[in-house]
Amino acid sequence: MNLVYTGKTKDVYELEDGNYLLTFKDDVTGENGVFDPGANTVGLTIEGAGRAGLRLTKFFFEVLKEKGIPTHYIDANIEEATMTVKPATVFGQGLEVICRYRAVGSFLRRYGRYAEEGQPLDAFVEVTLKDDARQDPPINEDGLAMLGILSHEEYKVLKNLTQQIANVVKEELAKKDIDLYDIKFEFGRVEDGQIVLIDEISGGNMRAYKNGEYIEPLELEKQMMA
Amino acid sequence: MNLVYTGKTKDVYELEDGNYLLTFKDDVTGENGVFDPGANTVGLTIEGAGRAGLRLTKFFFEVLKEKGIPTHYIDANIEEATMTVKPATVFGQGLEVICRYRAVGSFLRRYGRYAEEGQPLDAFVEVTLKDDARQDPPINEDGLAMLGILSHEEYKVLKNLTQQIANVVKEELAKKDIDLYDIKFEFGRVEDGQIVLIDEISGGNMRAYKNGEYIEPLELEKQMMA
Repeated sequence: MNLVYTGKTKDVYELEDGNYLLTFKDDVTGENGVFDPGANTVGLTIEGAGRAGLRLTKFFFEVLKEKGIPTHYIDANIEEATMTVKPATVFGQGLEVICRYRAVGSFLRRYGRYAEEGQPLDAFVEVTLKDDARQDPPINEDGLAMLGILSHEEYKVLKNLTQQIANVVKEELAKKDIDLYDIKFEFGRVEDGQIVLIDEISGGNMRAYKNGEYIEPLELEKQMMA
Repeated sequence: MNLVYTGKTKDVYELEDGNYLLTFKDDVTGENGVFDPGANTVGLTIEGAGRAGLRLTKFFFEVLKEKGIPTHYIDANIEEATMTVKPATVFGQGLEVICRYRAVGSFLRRYGRYAEEGQPLDAFVEVTLKDDARQDPPINEDGLAMLGILSHEEYKVLKNLTQQIANVVKEELAKKDIDLYDIKFEFGRVEDGQIVLIDEISGGNMRAYKNGEYIEPLELEKQMMA
């Protein structure tokens, strides 16, 4: 089992059968000790954050499987905080695809002249390049195509999948009276070129609110898994 | 004649017949005394810059008129550095529409992980919001539609006009062996809702190079009008 990648919140190992093993760490993104799903730095370490993130990820990936929405998920071992996944290659050097139901975070920082904080948005999708040094710049469909990262056809698939998956998460949260404000995903291509959801779906990837109050990632896992 | 708007490089007066008069100033955008067409501040004042910008603008707007491409232009008085235009309303609080043939400037700052300096781009179009306080953030087609700034149909028209007009400028420059690297435009809606090019087309809106060397706005005007 070879370590092939060390990420901010996960390590990735190659398995002998060609699949990959993700290990979920207790590190979460943020700045100055405050959690921020949009941040590029590890802000704090929370005991049990890895397992909590994996429990939610397993839950959502299994719901998606039932609905026939493609992901890289094979199975998960909560005790060991590991998830086995199919091999997938990312687009370029990695994209983040964000789906927004409320104007908060970087949307508000960029478009605050036209939007009020918390204003409803209709599953607005935007793509950013994973590039810490350049603060994950947003890029439009034409830019992605021109730089050879994603074809126009693939962009349509990506946007459609993003809205479908975000809607599944939104509905699951709504069952516990929790509102999804925004969520970010990563996608990859598997062997046959099919575009699938990769990485995770946990409190660390989304902003969730209950009665107008933000729910921390660990608390979200508790409420969702209760 | 009422002053209705004071801009960084132009003032706008309302005329009694309902049209508007733009006065071209000698101020150009930049930072620390260095010209930068993408900057949001007046960087320096150059004697004759207003008239030079107007001469080029008049030239290009008249070429566009011949080609049947709609603009707000009526006529120009070089001596007085004024241009008479039809009334037009901008989208939201104003957009900048950029067309790029080479990877330089903010494109390179954002997408430098995927592009080399000066790399050819195929008339890549992107839109930014005019918002000095937020550094003119880029916004995609869905975002423009969601914030009620521009419909999807209007975006198509805008993008198409942008590429048409940029291509006209590119061809005119090529006649003098000058390469257009990038150019930015502003658009508005006239009385019947038609989308037209507004503002100006001058050295202050574009990056032009000759034999790999950048040409300053005043020098560009000299070479083009020679």
